[in-house]
Amino acid sequence: MRGAGLLLAFAILLLVAPAAMAEPRVTTFTLANGMQVVVIEDHRVPVVTHMVWYRAGAAEDPWGTSGIAHFLEHLMFKSTGKLKSGEFSRTITRLGGRDNATTTHDNTSYFQRVAKEHLRAVMELEADRMVNLRLVEEEVKTERDVILAERRSNIDGNPLSLLSEQMLAALYQNHPYGRPSIGFEHEMAKLSRQDAIDFYKRYYAPNNAVLVVAGDVTPEEVRGLAQATYGKNRPNRALVRPVRPDEPKPIAARRVQLVDGRAGARILLRYYPSPSFASGPPGEPESLELLARIIGGDDTSRLYRRLVVEKLASTAGANFSGTGRDSGRIAFVLIPLEGVSLEKVEAILDAIILEVREKGVTQVELDRAKSAFEAVRVFETDDQMQLARRYGEGVTFGQSIANIDELAKRVQSRSLDDIKRVAGEYLVMERSVTGTLVLPQKVEASAPQAVKQ
Amino acid sequence: MRGAGLLLAFAILLLVAPAAMAEPRVTTFTLANGMQVVVIEDHRVPVVTHMVWYRAGAAEDPWGTSGIAHFLEHLMFKSTGKLKSGEFSRTITRLGGRDNATTTHDNTSYFQRVAKEHLRAVMELEADRMVNLRLVEEEVKTERDVILAERRSNIDGNPLSLLSEQMLAALYQNHPYGRPSIGFEHEMAKLSRQDAIDFYKRYYAPNNAVLVVAGDVTPEEVRGLAQATYGKNRPNRALVRPVRPDEPKPIAARRVQLVDGRAGARILLRYYPSPSFASGPPGEPESLELLARIIGGDDTSRLYRRLVVEKLASTAGANFSGTGRDSGRIAFVLIPLEGVSLEKVEAILDAIILEVREKGVTQVELDRAKSAFEAVRVFETDDQMQLARRYGEGVTFGQSIANIDELAKRVQSRSLDDIKRVAGEYLVMERSVTGTLVLPQKVEASAPQAVKQ
Repeated sequence: MRGAGLLLAFAILLLVAPAAMAEPRVTTFTLANGMQVVVIEDHRVPVVTHMVWYRAGAAEDPWGTSGIAHFLEHLMFKSTGKLKSGEFSRTITRLGGRDNATTTHDNTSYFQRVAKEHLRAVMELEADRMVNLRLVEEEVKTERDVILAERRSNIDGNPLSLLSEQMLAALYQNHPYGRPSIGFEHEMAKLSRQDAIDFYKRYYAPNNAVLVVAGDVTPEEVRGLAQATYGKNRPNRALVRPVRPDEPKPIAARRVQLVDGRAGARILLRYYPSPSFASGPPGEPESLELLARIIGGDDTSRLYRRLVVEKLASTAGANFSGTGRDSGRIAFVLIPLEGVSLEKVEAILDAIILEVREKGVTQVELDRAKSAFEAVRVFETDDQMQLARRYGEGVTFGQSIANIDELAKRVQSRSLDDIKRVAGEYLVMERSVTGTLVLPQKVEASAPQAVKQ
Repeated sequence: MRGAGLLLAFAILLLVAPAAMAEPRVTTFTLANGMQVVVIEDHRVPVVTHMVWYRAGAAEDPWGTSGIAHFLEHLMFKSTGKLKSGEFSRTITRLGGRDNATTTHDNTSYFQRVAKEHLRAVMELEADRMVNLRLVEEEVKTERDVILAERRSNIDGNPLSLLSEQMLAALYQNHPYGRPSIGFEHEMAKLSRQDAIDFYKRYYAPNNAVLVVAGDVTPEEVRGLAQATYGKNRPNRALVRPVRPDEPKPIAARRVQLVDGRAGARILLRYYPSPSFASGPPGEPESLELLARIIGGDDTSRLYRRLVVEKLASTAGANFSGTGRDSGRIAFVLIPLEGVSLEKVEAILDAIILEVREKGVTQVELDRAKSAFEAVRVFETDDQMQLARRYGEGVTFGQSIANIDELAKRVQSRSLDDIKRVAGEYLVMERSVTGTLVLPQKVEASAPQAVKQ
């Protein structure tokens, strides 16, 4: 909870030789009420990570009530028949555990990490609030102030977040990914108890949820506990998933310029829409992942060498966001050094993209990107929470365990031709949105930038 | 029908001294089934204009089925229990009349112009298809090809329409005005008979419609005829108008660049969102109307003198679109002459806007704009069809007859301060969307234009 995950993560990875590590043992089954269960065995320490994923996120916010999925996530920590407001998290803390929740455009997930012996207690609590939430008008009002404050501090107080929000609006003409997952402020201010109840009644049900338990458990144990807790909740037989409209083909390059006196530095962002791991043809998102790493994944990348090493920029990176259900994007970020124009660093970005489109990349670059990907993958596999997230997200999108497990193999089998092909297909100017964050100058009524002919 | 009204109209008006003319006599009443009736008396010729307006347009298209309001408009010319497919229009023609229909984002309207003695026959036909439409799968498929062909020829075949479509998508982040009223092609291709029936059943009912009869009739005559025809149709008591989401405050200037080899000339468009006549505080849209005329309404305007007279542009104009229910916009169009850059004409546009924002306009300019407005208004008042449209649209939006009639007076009472204030409030760069249409150059992977620092 408390954080709608809008910020860009452009982590520059430290390259470490990955230790050989087997994929974890993962089992899945479905309860009679339609709730899918995923068990990830990890017997190294007597700890479990428990997650419930609902197949409903900000993209399901009804028009005019943006932010309701995220607001409901907050309200899920209020009272049920059994629990007083705030008691859920206090109980987890008392058990020595920790808990949190996240809302993305695609789903809402709740998770706890506790010692193994408390798993049953956690499952009882989570199963209870899946169907027994009681919303009190006064608490709804108070919590609305909390989400508004969250928006002000995370989005409105942060020019880079604001710019990104504006760019997503420009990137998506039809799909609700173009709306901020935390909501538009003017709509958040009007979110009501009834809006939350409507969303809850529609989407919070075992047949719209995925349970993930990772840790020192067996599938048999989890099955027994799940049946005894979630198994008692009745499915929503009337569940209808709303239509998510497809995007039209992008045909015109777009630019967004945010002038903001609070900006610490001038920044240029560039987004290109693309398939995601869940939506793309197998292999294509994997090629995009490698392509982004080669162009700007770390300090061996083309962008870094041509901009940071050459003392033109303090930051120059690229990133593939592939975790959406319906689409993903390749993003570039450039922060020029003092005295270097945004125009100049953008021209170098464009030149690098053109080179890759025309000539492809080298075997050395491809091999290095594969190693870097594998290193991250192994770190992730070693982290129980990350692992639970990987399977929870994939299964929520309808992917099979085998499909999720084979991602690493699909990445490793990409060829030079594959990389060149996706660069040619997706890094095309008419698909792009370019965003610039600049400091105010006395140019109030002039264009964000002039058109060069 | 067959024409979703997306094209820009930048008519340069010929100034003619307006003849003094009284506002027409307009009466309104409501039938027992909730259908509002507007009668505009015009006894000069024995002809009537008959219109039915439904309060449902492309903004009501459910997400994922854009274009359905317009598609249904086409299908309304198919069969009912009484009429065969196409017989509606053939009957009007046989009666010596003409008919057509229009879909905008806000409403769908059907109109006929016939000799007075045929009014009853027309009302019977229109009342019949309001509730008795019968859609045959085969005809739906054929007509879908017609709307797809219409989109290809009116939008996809016309770079300026495409650019405008892209700019509207950039202008609206939340409101359905950002979607094309004719629909996205990939969604139009999937529109089904059931989609059309759902829209029809939901919105086509007397209590969601406005009848306008203009011509050689009295309110008493029309009341009798309306009761005998439309009066028989039962209201839709379950009618619920969907939420139209409000826009967030615009904070970042946006640009869209369309590269198209079919472009006859390079063009620059600039849009600023604003209130409309129906949504703005009284007087404000009237000030915007005058402001647009002063900056670029005709060949005495600032834009024309600085760009066309100075041989920098072949076209330079401005236009206020104020007829939307929820918002309007001020639009500028510039077509530079060969050898003049878009950058140069844009800089002059920006300089003119800055002057008006800072220093306002002159009394001579304001008086001329008021006269020009009055001239158009008088021509419109003289045209039965235009007049019927004026009241039909206004009443559909919930405006009173008095409010519609007082528009001219509100325009005439605007002051120099009023004009300066709306220029300062609305012609602000961070609200703007700038669109450029350019011919391809070999700059495939470079940005649409560089950022000037």
